[in-house]
Amino acid sequence: MTATIEVLRIGQRPVRDDRVTTHAALVARAFGASRIYMTEANPEIRQGIRAINETWGGRFEVEYVDGWRPVLHEKVRQGYTVVHLSMYGESVNDVQGELRRRAADGAAKMLIVVGAKKVPREVYDAADYNVSVGGQPHSEIAALAVLLDRIYQGAQLGQERFGGARRRIVPSRHGKRVESSAYGDGDGDRPGAHKVQ
Amino acid sequence: MTATIEVLRIGQRPVRDDRVTTHAALVARAFGASRIYMTEANPEIRQGIRAINETWGGRFEVEYVDGWRPVLHEKVRQGYTVVHLSMYGESVNDVQGELRRRAADGAAKMLIVVGAKKVPREVYDAADYNVSVGGQPHSEIAALAVLLDRIYQGAQLGQERFGGARRRIVPSRHGKRVESSAYGDGDGDRPGAHKVQ
Repeated sequence: MTATIEVLRIGQRPVRDDRVTTHAALVARAFGASRIYMTEANPEIRQGIRAINETWGGRFEVEYVDGWRPVLHEKVRQGYTVVHLSMYGESVNDVQGELRRRAADGAAKMLIVVGAKKVPREVYDAADYNVSVGGQPHSEIAALAVLLDRIYQGAQLGQERFGGARRRIVPSRHGKRVESSAYGDGDGDRPGAHKVQ
Repeated sequence: MTATIEVLRIGQRPVRDDRVTTHAALVARAFGASRIYMTEANPEIRQGIRAINETWGGRFEVEYVDGWRPVLHEKVRQGYTVVHLSMYGESVNDVQGELRRRAADGAAKMLIVVGAKKVPREVYDAADYNVSVGGQPHSEIAALAVLLDRIYQGAQLGQERFGGARRRIVPSRHGKRVESSAYGDGDGDRPGAHKVQ
């Protein structure tokens, strides 16, 4: 039992950032968060994530909100630990121990704030931790992935959170192996493990 | 001294994938690779990375190639360890030890292949390792970041590789601190550490 972790995506630009926002949502889902909040997002993002839940399992949620401020301040009031990813923050190398201890408490809740450009000062002030994954410009998708990987130390890559999956990958040194459930989605899958390629 | 690590981006779709490809290049640069090869890419990607090198240091290179096949097979001939990131591969949790040992050899060379959709069988066969960062669909940007983070175990986040930087971030719990060199780029920076915000 680990803490509830949610993600708040702020500052994305419609259309231009849709693919990056989609990747951020997929990473949040695949790396152990339960939900992502986003503003001004293309409705196709939520539909896409729902389709992925149906095929690959789990109950990750995409929630559209009118603005990020009420979400941020409500979570602060609710006692969430707020972690803001920023290249200006403290190094994840230095704070990962504290974040792991907090996340190990099953009753704890954590909100990870993922900005695009020009995050307002208000977010830096509201955050319990401003955390950098290196002091070089790179990618909020990468920062989110590495932060969650550091917190969970690889345990998030297990399949336990992905109940109800129609398809499940069997790790393979060469090639592709996928197990399909009896409720295959009609694209030629048969129950049981088989080679796709 | 660690191995030379290069990245080969394959299968991206022009325009549609430009931002994702840019993120992949930035992650390769920030997380310890020396070069990324890409095909059919927007020339602005290389210009953008050069501008980032000028400001933030280092000599990361973007190299455009006509096709990925010659690069892949040339690297195989040159004795590179080829690591292909694929959700169908072996778990990074299981192979990270081997990859770290290989990367710890300063004379070794590694090519990380990062695909978009539908990577041909040929790549699976050519790779020494097909590695998954979880068996869930997510993001090649995240997969590249986590793989490099697992190999370098956080050491890649130091500033040693980024010589010649005009700007350098001083990690900060709240707010933004940036050091500018005496060769500031004229956008108002003065030498020495100062608060930007």
